Amino acid sequence: MPYSKNYKIIVEYFGGAFHGWQKQKGLLTVQSELERVIRTVLHSDDISPLQGAGRTDAGVHARGQVVNFRTDLDIDSLVFKHSVSSMLKGKLAVLSVEEVPMSFNALRSATSRQYSYRILNRPAPAVLDHARAWHVSSPLDVSKLRDDALCLVGERDFTSFRASGCLSSTPIKTIRESEVIVDGEYLIYRVIGKGFLKQMVRIIVGTLVQLNRGKTRLNSMSEILEAKDRRMAGVTAPPHGLYLDQVFYD
Amino acid sequence: MPYSKNYKIIVEYFGGAFHGWQKQKGLLTVQSELERVIRTVLHSDDISPLQGAGRTDAGVHARGQVVNFRTDLDIDSLVFKHSVSSMLKGKLAVLSVEEVPMSFNALRSATSRQYSYRILNRPAPAVLDHARAWHVSSPLDVSKLRDDALCLVGERDFTSFRASGCLSSTPIKTIRESEVIVDGEYLIYRVIGKGFLKQMVRIIVGTLVQLNRGKTRLNSMSEILEAKDRRMAGVTAPPHGLYLDQVFYD
Repeated sequence: MPYSKNYKIIVEYFGGAFHGWQKQKGLLTVQSELERVIRTVLHSDDISPLQGAGRTDAGVHARGQVVNFRTDLDIDSLVFKHSVSSMLKGKLAVLSVEEVPMSFNALRSATSRQYSYRILNRPAPAVLDHARAWHVSSPLDVSKLRDDALCLVGERDFTSFRASGCLSSTPIKTIRESEVIVDGEYLIYRVIGKGFLKQMVRIIVGTLVQLNRGKTRLNSMSEILEAKDRRMAGVTAPPHGLYLDQVFYD
Repeated sequence: MPYSKNYKIIVEYFGGAFHGWQKQKGLLTVQSELERVIRTVLHSDDISPLQGAGRTDAGVHARGQVVNFRTDLDIDSLVFKHSVSSMLKGKLAVLSVEEVPMSFNALRSATSRQYSYRILNRPAPAVLDHARAWHVSSPLDVSKLRDDALCLVGERDFTSFRASGCLSSTPIKTIRESEVIVDGEYLIYRVIGKGFLKQMVRIIVGTLVQLNRGKTRLNSMSEILEAKDRRMAGVTAPPHGLYLDQVFYD
Protein backbone atom coordinates (compact mmCIF):
# COMPACT_ATOMS: atom_id res chain seq x y z
CA MET A 1 0.00 0.00 0.00
CA PRO A 2 2.20 2.85 -1.20
CA TYR A 3 0.56 6.04 -0.01
CA SER A 4 0.57 9.12 -2.22
CA LYS A 5 1.12 11.84 0.40
CA ASN A 6 3.56 12.43 3.26
CA TYR A 7 2.75 14.90 6.05
CA LYS A 8 5.14 16.51 8.51
CA ILE A 9 3.61 17.81 11.73
CA ILE A 10 5.22 19.61 14.66
CA VAL A 11 3.73 18.98 18.09
CA GLU A 12 4.12 20.34 21.61
CA TYR A 13 3.27 18.04 24.51
CA PHE A 14 3.32 17.88 28.27
CA GLY A 15 5.32 14.79 29.20
CA GLY A 16 3.46 14.24 32.46
CA ALA A 17 0.35 13.28 30.49
CA PHE A 18 2.00 10.35 28.68
CA HIS A 19 4.16 7.28 29.23
CA GLY A 20 6.71 8.61 26.75
CA TRP A 21 6.65 8.73 22.97
CA GLN A 22 6.93 5.07 22.02
CA LYS A 23 3.89 2.79 21.70
CA GLN A 24 3.62 0.33 24.60
CA LYS A 25 0.84 -2.15 25.09
CA GLY A 26 -1.75 -0.95 27.59
CA LEU A 27 -0.04 2.40 28.21
CA LEU A 28 -1.08 5.85 27.09
CA THR A 29 1.83 7.10 24.99
CA VAL A 30 2.19 10.09 22.65
CA GLN A 31 2.54 7.88 19.61
CA SER A 32 -0.55 5.76 20.37
CA GLU A 33 -2.74 8.69 21.46
CA LEU A 34 -1.76 10.84 18.51
CA GLU A 35 -2.35 7.98 16.07
CA ARG A 36 -5.76 7.30 17.57
CA VAL A 37 -6.78 10.97 17.45
CA ILE A 38 -5.48 11.49 13.89
CA ARG A 39 -7.51 8.49 12.72
CA THR A 40 -10.59 9.93 14.41
CA VAL A 41 -10.08 13.41 12.96
CA LEU A 42 -9.44 12.09 9.43
CA HIS A 43 -12.27 9.52 9.73
CA SER A 44 -9.91 6.86 8.41
CA ASP A 45 -7.69 4.04 9.58
CA ASP A 46 -5.74 4.22 6.38
CA ILE A 47 -2.68 6.13 7.56
CA SER A 48 0.84 4.81 8.09
CA PRO A 49 2.27 4.44 11.60
CA LEU A 50 3.65 7.71 12.99
CA GLN A 51 7.39 8.29 12.78
CA GLY A 52 8.77 10.65 15.46
CA ALA A 53 12.11 12.48 15.33
CA GLY A 54 13.04 11.50 18.87
CA ARG A 55 11.78 8.94 21.40
CA THR A 56 11.08 10.97 24.50
CA ASP A 57 10.99 9.05 27.79
CA ALA A 58 7.98 9.10 30.12
CA GLY A 59 7.71 12.57 31.67
CA VAL A 60 9.86 14.30 29.04
CA HIS A 61 8.21 17.26 27.29
CA ALA A 62 8.35 18.45 23.71
CA ARG A 63 8.15 21.99 22.39
CA GLY A 64 8.83 20.87 18.82
CA GLN A 65 8.65 17.12 18.29
CA VAL A 66 8.54 16.40 14.55
CA VAL A 67 6.39 13.56 13.27
CA ASN A 68 5.59 12.28 9.79
CA PHE A 69 2.99 9.91 8.44
CA ARG A 70 1.75 8.84 5.02
CA THR A 71 -1.80 8.69 3.72
CA ASP A 72 -3.84 9.19 0.55
CA LEU A 73 -6.09 11.77 2.18
CA ASP A 74 -6.00 15.52 1.68
CA ILE A 75 -5.53 17.31 4.98
CA ASP A 76 -6.94 20.75 5.68
CA SER A 77 -4.20 22.18 7.87
CA LEU A 78 -6.35 24.58 9.94
CA VAL A 79 -9.09 22.03 10.67
CA PHE A 80 -6.54 19.30 11.42
CA LYS A 81 -4.53 21.42 13.88
CA HIS A 82 -7.63 22.65 15.65
CA SER A 83 -9.33 19.25 15.87
CA VAL A 84 -6.31 17.27 17.07
CA SER A 85 -5.35 19.95 19.63
CA SER A 86 -8.93 20.12 20.94
CA MET A 87 -9.17 16.36 21.37
CA LEU A 88 -5.92 16.32 23.37
CA LYS A 89 -6.62 19.58 25.20
CA GLY A 90 -3.92 20.62 27.64
CA LYS A 91 -1.84 17.54 26.78
CA LEU A 92 -0.74 18.04 23.18
CA ALA A 93 -1.10 20.69 20.48
CA VAL A 94 -0.28 20.57 16.79
CA LEU A 95 1.82 23.62 15.92
CA SER A 96 2.09 23.04 12.18
CA VAL A 97 1.19 20.63 9.39
CA GLU A 98 2.67 20.54 5.90
CA GLU A 99 2.86 18.16 3.00
CA VAL A 100 6.47 17.11 2.35
CA PRO A 101 8.26 14.99 -0.28
CA MET A 102 7.71 11.23 0.09
CA SER A 103 11.40 10.82 0.98
CA PHE A 104 11.07 12.86 4.20
CA ASN A 105 11.44 10.80 7.40
CA ALA A 106 11.20 12.67 10.71
CA LEU A 107 13.87 10.45 12.31
CA ARG A 108 16.31 9.74 9.51
CA SER A 109 16.14 13.11 7.71
CA ALA A 110 16.95 15.06 10.89
CA THR A 111 20.34 16.76 10.81
CA SER A 112 20.35 17.83 14.48
CA ARG A 113 18.22 18.22 17.57
CA GLN A 114 18.01 20.80 20.34
CA TYR A 115 17.08 19.83 23.89
CA SER A 116 16.82 22.03 26.93
CA TYR A 117 16.75 21.06 30.59
CA ARG A 118 15.16 23.35 33.21
CA ILE A 119 16.53 23.39 36.76
CA LEU A 120 14.69 25.38 39.42
CA ASN A 121 17.55 26.41 41.69
CA ARG A 122 16.12 27.81 44.92
CA PRO A 123 15.31 26.47 48.38
CA ALA A 124 11.54 26.13 47.82
CA PRO A 125 10.21 23.29 45.65
CA ALA A 126 8.51 23.85 42.28
CA VAL A 127 4.87 24.85 42.41
CA LEU A 128 3.95 26.87 39.32
CA ASP A 129 6.42 24.68 37.40
CA HIS A 130 5.63 21.42 39.19
CA ALA A 131 6.47 18.48 36.86
CA ARG A 132 8.05 21.02 34.47
CA ALA A 133 11.49 21.57 36.07
CA TRP A 134 13.97 19.73 38.31
CA HIS A 135 14.18 21.25 41.76
CA VAL A 136 17.78 21.60 42.98
CA SER A 137 17.75 23.37 46.33
CA SER A 138 21.45 24.01 46.97
CA PRO A 139 22.85 27.00 45.05
CA LEU A 140 24.79 26.03 41.93
CA ASP A 141 27.91 27.81 40.66
CA VAL A 142 26.85 29.01 37.21
CA SER A 143 30.32 29.73 35.92
CA LYS A 144 31.47 26.20 36.80
CA LEU A 145 28.33 24.77 35.17
CA ARG A 146 29.17 26.74 32.02
CA ASP A 147 32.80 25.60 31.91
CA ASP A 148 31.82 21.97 32.46
CA ALA A 149 29.09 22.20 29.81
CA LEU A 150 31.57 23.64 27.31
CA CYS A 151 33.87 20.59 27.74
CA LEU A 152 31.28 18.49 25.92
CA VAL A 153 31.35 20.41 22.64
CA GLY A 154 32.86 18.50 19.72
CA GLU A 155 33.04 14.87 18.62
CA ARG A 156 33.36 12.77 21.77
CA ASP A 157 33.00 9.24 23.05
CA PHE A 158 29.96 9.51 25.36
CA THR A 159 30.16 5.99 26.84
CA SER A 160 30.11 7.53 30.36
CA PHE A 161 26.81 9.23 29.50
CA ARG A 162 25.01 6.24 28.02
CA ALA A 163 22.19 4.42 29.80
CA SER A 164 22.16 0.65 29.84
CA GLY A 165 20.02 -0.76 27.06
CA CYS A 166 21.09 1.95 24.62
CA LEU A 167 20.73 0.63 21.08
CA SER A 168 22.97 3.17 19.33
CA SER A 169 25.61 1.51 17.13
CA THR A 170 28.31 3.90 18.39
CA PRO A 171 28.95 5.95 21.56
CA ILE A 172 30.65 8.65 19.45
CA LYS A 173 28.41 11.67 19.10
CA THR A 174 28.99 15.28 18.07
CA ILE A 175 27.73 18.14 20.21
CA ARG A 176 27.59 21.52 18.53
CA GLU A 177 26.37 23.71 21.37
CA SER A 178 26.31 23.07 25.11
CA GLU A 179 25.54 26.03 27.32
CA VAL A 180 23.86 27.19 30.51
CA ILE A 181 21.40 30.11 30.50
CA VAL A 182 20.22 31.89 33.66
CA ASP A 183 16.55 32.93 33.73
CA GLY A 184 15.63 34.26 37.16
CA GLU A 185 15.52 31.29 39.54
CA TYR A 186 15.95 28.89 36.62
CA LEU A 187 19.11 27.48 35.11
CA ILE A 188 18.56 26.14 31.62
CA TYR A 189 20.99 23.71 30.03
CA ARG A 190 20.70 23.89 26.24
CA VAL A 191 22.36 21.38 23.95
CA ILE A 192 22.40 20.89 20.17
CA GLY A 193 23.77 17.77 18.53
CA LYS A 194 23.21 15.50 15.57
CA GLY A 195 22.11 12.60 17.73
CA PHE A 196 22.07 11.54 21.36
CA LEU A 197 22.51 8.27 23.23
CA LYS A 198 19.78 6.90 25.49
CA GLN A 199 19.24 9.32 28.43
CA MET A 200 22.45 11.16 27.46
CA VAL A 201 21.10 14.67 28.12
CA ARG A 202 19.67 13.66 31.51
CA ILE A 203 22.97 12.01 32.52
CA ILE A 204 24.89 15.12 31.38
CA VAL A 205 22.64 17.32 33.55
CA GLY A 206 22.92 14.99 36.56
CA THR A 207 26.71 15.05 36.13
CA LEU A 208 26.85 18.86 35.79
CA VAL A 209 24.92 19.20 39.05
CA GLN A 210 26.95 16.58 40.94
CA LEU A 211 30.29 17.95 39.69
CA ASN A 212 29.14 21.33 40.99
CA ARG A 213 28.57 19.86 44.44
CA GLY A 214 31.81 17.83 44.37
CA LYS A 215 29.82 14.61 44.49
CA THR A 216 31.32 12.69 41.59
CA ARG A 217 34.14 10.16 41.94
CA LEU A 218 36.22 12.00 39.32
CA ASN A 219 36.84 15.72 39.56
CA SER A 220 36.33 17.01 36.06
CA MET A 221 34.12 16.56 33.02
CA SER A 222 37.12 15.65 30.86
CA GLU A 223 38.19 12.86 33.26
CA ILE A 224 34.63 11.55 33.26
CA LEU A 225 34.56 11.55 29.44
CA GLU A 226 37.95 9.78 29.29
CA ALA A 227 36.89 7.13 31.82
CA LYS A 228 34.31 5.76 29.32
CA ASP A 229 32.48 4.29 32.31
CA ARG A 230 28.86 5.12 33.18
CA ARG A 231 29.64 4.69 36.90
CA MET A 232 32.01 7.67 36.84
CA ALA A 233 29.31 10.12 35.66
CA GLY A 234 26.53 11.53 37.84
CA VAL A 235 22.93 10.53 38.41
CA THR A 236 20.34 10.57 35.63
CA ALA A 237 18.45 13.85 36.14
CA PRO A 238 14.66 13.32 36.34
CA PRO A 239 12.70 13.31 33.06
CA HIS A 240 10.33 16.18 33.93
CA GLY A 241 13.03 18.85 33.46
CA LEU A 242 13.79 17.83 29.87
CA TYR A 243 12.31 19.38 26.71
CA LEU A 244 12.80 18.36 23.09
CA ASP A 245 12.88 21.92 21.72
CA GLN A 246 13.49 21.62 18.04
CA VAL A 247 14.55 19.24 15.30
CA PHE A 248 16.54 20.57 12.36
CA TYR A 249 16.41 19.40 8.73
CA ASP A 250 18.33 20.49 5.64
CA MET B 1 -6.01 35.72 73.90
CA PRO B 2 -3.39 38.26 72.88
CA TYR B 3 -0.64 36.30 71.17
CA SER B 4 3.00 37.21 71.73
CA LYS B 5 4.40 36.65 68.23
CA ASN B 6 3.46 37.70 64.71
CA TYR B 7 4.81 35.82 61.67
CA LYS B 8 4.95 36.98 58.05
CA ILE B 9 5.18 34.27 55.43
CA ILE B 10 5.47 34.55 51.65
CA VAL B 11 3.86 31.78 49.62
CA GLU B 12 3.71 30.69 45.99
CA TYR B 13 0.69 28.72 44.84
CA PHE B 14 -0.88 27.23 41.76
CA GLY B 15 -4.38 28.67 41.49
CA GLY B 16 -5.79 25.64 39.70
CA ALA B 17 -5.40 23.61 42.90
CA PHE B 18 -7.67 25.84 45.00
CA HIS B 19 -11.04 27.58 44.99
CA GLY B 20 -9.36 30.94 45.55
CA TRP B 21 -7.82 32.43 48.68
CA GLN B 22 -10.85 33.06 50.85
CA LYS B 23 -12.29 30.42 53.20
CA GLN B 24 -15.56 28.99 51.90
CA LYS B 25 -17.55 26.24 53.53
CA GLY B 26 -16.93 22.85 51.95
CA LEU B 27 -14.41 24.16 49.40
CA LEU B 28 -10.66 23.68 49.31
CA THR B 29 -9.23 27.21 49.46
CA VAL B 30 -5.70 28.49 50.05
CA GLN B 31 -6.64 30.05 53.37
CA SER B 32 -8.32 26.93 54.74
CA GLU B 33 -5.70 24.48 53.46
CA LEU B 34 -2.80 26.59 54.65
CA GLU B 35 -4.39 27.05 58.09
CA ARG B 36 -5.00 23.31 58.38
CA VAL B 37 -1.43 22.44 57.37
CA ILE B 38 0.16 25.10 59.62
CA ARG B 39 -1.80 23.71 62.61
CA THR B 40 -0.60 20.21 61.75
CA VAL B 41 3.03 21.28 61.36
CA LEU B 42 3.02 23.32 64.58
CA HIS B 43 1.06 20.61 66.46
CA SER B 44 -1.26 23.31 67.75
CA ASP B 45 -4.66 24.85 67.10
CA ASP B 46 -3.62 27.94 68.95
CA ILE B 47 -2.84 30.24 66.06
CA SER B 48 -4.83 33.24 64.83
CA PRO B 49 -6.72 33.09 61.53
CA LEU B 50 -4.50 33.79 58.53
CA GLN B 51 -4.51 37.27 57.04
CA GLY B 52 -3.61 37.44 53.34
CA ALA B 53 -2.46 40.54 51.45
CA GLY B 54 -4.84 39.93 48.56
CA ARG B 55 -7.89 37.74 47.97
CA THR B 56 -7.07 35.84 44.83
CA ASP B 57 -10.05 34.40 42.91
CA ALA B 58 -10.37 30.70 42.07
CA GLY B 59 -7.72 29.81 39.47
CA VAL B 60 -5.52 32.87 40.13
CA HIS B 61 -1.90 32.08 41.00
CA ALA B 62 0.51 33.69 43.43
CA ARG B 63 4.26 34.04 43.16
CA GLY B 64 4.46 36.12 46.31
CA GLN B 65 1.27 36.18 48.36
CA VAL B 66 2.02 37.59 51.81
CA VAL B 67 0.27 36.16 54.86
CA ASN B 68 0.54 36.87 58.56
CA PHE B 69 -0.67 35.05 61.65
CA ARG B 70 -0.17 35.32 65.38
CA THR B 71 0.79 32.63 67.87
CA ASP B 72 2.78 32.06 71.05
CA LEU B 73 4.89 29.35 69.47
CA ASP B 74 8.49 29.61 68.33
CA ILE B 75 8.79 28.71 64.67
CA ASP B 76 11.91 27.13 63.20
CA SER B 77 11.93 28.74 59.76
CA LEU B 78 13.71 25.93 57.87
CA VAL B 79 11.58 23.14 59.33
CA PHE B 80 8.38 25.15 58.86
CA LYS B 81 9.07 25.98 55.20
CA HIS B 82 10.05 22.43 54.39
CA SER B 83 7.14 20.78 56.22
CA VAL B 84 4.37 23.04 54.92
CA SER B 85 5.69 22.87 51.33
CA SER B 86 5.97 19.07 51.49
CA MET B 87 2.43 18.67 52.78
CA LEU B 88 1.11 20.82 49.91
CA LYS B 89 3.49 19.42 47.31
CA GLY B 90 3.09 20.88 43.86
CA LYS B 91 0.24 23.13 45.04
CA LEU B 92 1.86 25.61 47.43
CA ALA B 93 5.35 26.40 48.73
CA VAL B 94 6.47 28.66 51.54
CA LEU B 95 9.23 30.93 50.20
CA SER B 96 10.05 32.71 53.47
CA VAL B 97 9.05 33.03 57.12
CA GLU B 98 10.01 35.81 59.51
CA GLU B 99 8.90 37.18 62.82
CA VAL B 100 7.58 40.72 62.44
CA PRO B 101 6.31 43.42 64.83
CA MET B 102 2.83 42.77 66.27
CA SER B 103 1.51 45.75 64.33
CA PHE B 104 2.21 44.14 60.95
CA ASN B 105 -0.90 43.19 58.99
CA ALA B 106 -0.39 41.60 55.55
CA LEU B 107 -3.46 43.36 54.13
CA ARG B 108 -3.47 46.74 55.86
CA SER B 109 0.30 47.32 56.02
CA ALA B 110 0.74 46.76 52.27
CA THR B 111 1.75 49.89 50.37
CA SER B 112 1.36 48.39 46.89
CA ARG B 113 0.91 45.18 44.94
CA GLN B 114 2.26 43.87 41.68
CA TYR B 115 0.22 41.56 39.46
CA SER B 116 1.13 40.09 36.12
CA TYR B 117 -1.09 38.52 33.50
CA ARG B 118 0.27 36.01 30.98
CA ILE B 119 -1.24 35.80 27.50
CA LEU B 120 -0.11 33.03 25.16
CA ASN B 121 -0.51 34.71 21.77
CA ARG B 122 -0.22 32.08 19.05
CA PRO B 123 -2.60 29.93 17.01
CA ALA B 124 -2.05 26.71 19.04
CA PRO B 125 -3.61 26.39 22.50
CA ALA B 126 -1.54 26.22 25.70
CA VAL B 127 -0.06 22.84 26.55
CA LEU B 128 3.08 23.28 28.64
CA ASP B 129 1.39 26.32 30.20
CA HIS B 130 -2.10 24.85 30.36
CA ALA B 131 -4.06 26.58 33.19
CA ARG B 132 -1.12 29.00 33.52
CA ALA B 133 -1.79 31.48 30.69
CA TRP B 134 -4.73 32.83 28.66
CA HIS B 135 -4.67 31.60 25.09
CA VAL B 136 -5.43 34.38 22.59
CA SER B 137 -5.06 32.99 19.08
CA SER B 138 -5.35 36.11 16.92
CA PRO B 139 -2.14 38.17 16.76
CA LEU B 140 -2.17 41.22 19.03
CA ASP B 141 -0.62 44.58 18.19
CA VAL B 142 1.95 45.03 20.96
CA SER B 143 2.53 48.74 20.46
CA LYS B 144 -1.23 49.41 20.73
CA LEU B 145 -1.39 47.21 23.85
CA ARG B 146 1.45 49.27 25.33
CA ASP B 147 -0.17 52.62 24.54
CA ASP B 148 -3.52 51.50 25.95
CA ALA B 149 -1.87 50.09 29.08
CA LEU B 150 -0.03 53.38 29.64
CA CYS B 151 -3.35 55.30 29.68
CA LEU B 152 -4.15 53.68 33.02
CA VAL B 153 -1.19 55.09 34.94
CA GLY B 154 -2.09 57.65 37.59
CA GLU B 155 -5.02 58.27 39.93
CA ARG B 156 -8.18 57.28 38.02
CA ASP B 157 -11.81 56.40 38.56
CA PHE B 158 -11.92 52.71 37.67
CA THR B 159 -15.71 52.27 37.79
CA SER B 160 -15.62 50.79 34.26
CA PHE B 161 -13.18 48.14 35.53
CA ARG B 162 -15.05 47.09 38.64
CA ALA B 163 -16.91 43.80 38.96
CA SER B 164 -20.38 43.75 40.48
CA GLY B 165 -20.27 42.94 44.16
CA CYS B 166 -17.05 44.92 44.70
CA LEU B 167 -16.86 46.04 48.31
CA SER B 168 -14.28 48.81 47.88
CA SER B 169 -15.40 52.12 49.42
CA THR B 170 -14.15 54.04 46.39
CA PRO B 171 -13.58 53.33 42.68
CA ILE B 172 -10.63 55.76 42.67
CA LYS B 173 -7.34 53.85 42.55
CA THR B 174 -3.77 54.80 41.72
CA ILE B 175 -1.75 52.78 39.23
CA ARG B 176 1.99 53.36 39.31
CA GLU B 177 3.12 51.08 36.49
CA SER B 178 1.16 49.49 33.67
CA GLU B 179 3.17 47.88 30.90
CA VAL B 180 3.32 45.04 28.41
CA ILE B 181 6.39 42.80 28.12
CA VAL B 182 7.03 40.44 25.21
CA ASP B 183 8.57 37.07 26.10
CA GLY B 184 8.66 34.82 23.03
CA GLU B 185 5.09 33.74 22.31
CA TYR B 186 3.91 35.32 25.57
CA LEU B 187 2.67 38.82 26.23
CA ILE B 188 2.84 39.75 29.87
CA TYR B 189 0.80 42.61 31.29
CA ARG B 190 2.43 43.92 34.49
CA VAL B 191 0.72 46.36 36.80
CA ILE B 192 1.68 47.94 40.12
CA GLY B 193 -0.79 49.86 42.27
CA LYS B 194 -1.66 50.55 45.86
CA GLY B 195 -4.93 48.66 45.67
CA PHE B 196 -7.24 47.15 43.10
CA LEU B 197 -11.00 46.77 42.72
CA LYS B 198 -12.63 43.36 42.42
CA GLN B 199 -11.42 41.66 39.19
CA MET B 200 -9.93 44.99 38.06
CA VAL B 201 -6.75 43.49 36.56
CA ARG B 202 -8.70 40.80 34.69
CA ILE B 203 -11.13 43.40 33.29
CA ILE B 204 -8.19 45.61 32.24
CA VAL B 205 -6.62 42.69 30.37
CA GLY B 206 -9.92 41.69 28.73
CA THR B 207 -10.34 45.32 27.65
CA LEU B 208 -6.77 45.62 26.31
CA VAL B 209 -7.35 42.51 24.18
CA GLN B 210 -10.78 43.57 22.92
CA LEU B 211 -9.63 47.14 22.16
CA ASN B 212 -6.85 45.56 20.11
CA ARG B 213 -9.38 43.64 18.04
CA GLY B 214 -11.76 46.62 17.74
CA LYS B 215 -14.39 44.75 19.70
CA THR B 216 -15.31 47.30 22.37
CA ARG B 217 -18.22 49.72 22.06
CA LEU B 218 -15.94 52.68 22.69
CA ASN B 219 -12.73 53.16 20.72
CA SER B 220 -10.16 54.14 23.30
CA MET B 221 -9.05 53.37 26.83
CA SER B 222 -9.58 57.00 27.89
CA GLU B 223 -13.21 56.98 26.64
CA ILE B 224 -13.81 53.72 28.51
CA LEU B 225 -12.37 55.23 31.71
CA GLU B 226 -14.48 58.37 31.30
CA ALA B 227 -17.67 56.37 30.69
CA LYS B 228 -17.56 55.03 34.28
CA ASP B 229 -19.70 52.15 33.09
CA ARG B 230 -18.67 48.49 33.37
CA ARG B 231 -20.58 47.67 30.17
CA MET B 232 -18.24 49.87 28.13
CA ALA B 233 -15.11 47.90 29.10
CA GLY B 234 -14.18 44.47 27.72
CA VAL B 235 -14.68 40.95 29.02
CA THR B 236 -13.17 39.73 32.27
CA ALA B 237 -10.06 37.80 31.22
CA PRO B 238 -9.96 34.26 32.67
CA PRO B 239 -8.42 33.80 36.13
CA HIS B 240 -5.72 31.30 35.13
CA GLY B 241 -3.56 33.94 33.41
CA LEU B 242 -3.29 36.11 36.54
CA TYR B 243 -0.44 36.06 39.07
CA LEU B 244 -0.10 38.00 42.32
CA ASP B 245 3.63 38.63 41.97
CA GLN B 246 4.64 40.69 44.93
CA VAL B 247 3.33 42.79 47.79
CA PHE B 248 5.29 45.80 48.96
CA TYR B 249 5.60 47.17 52.50
CA ASP B 250 7.41 50.19 53.90
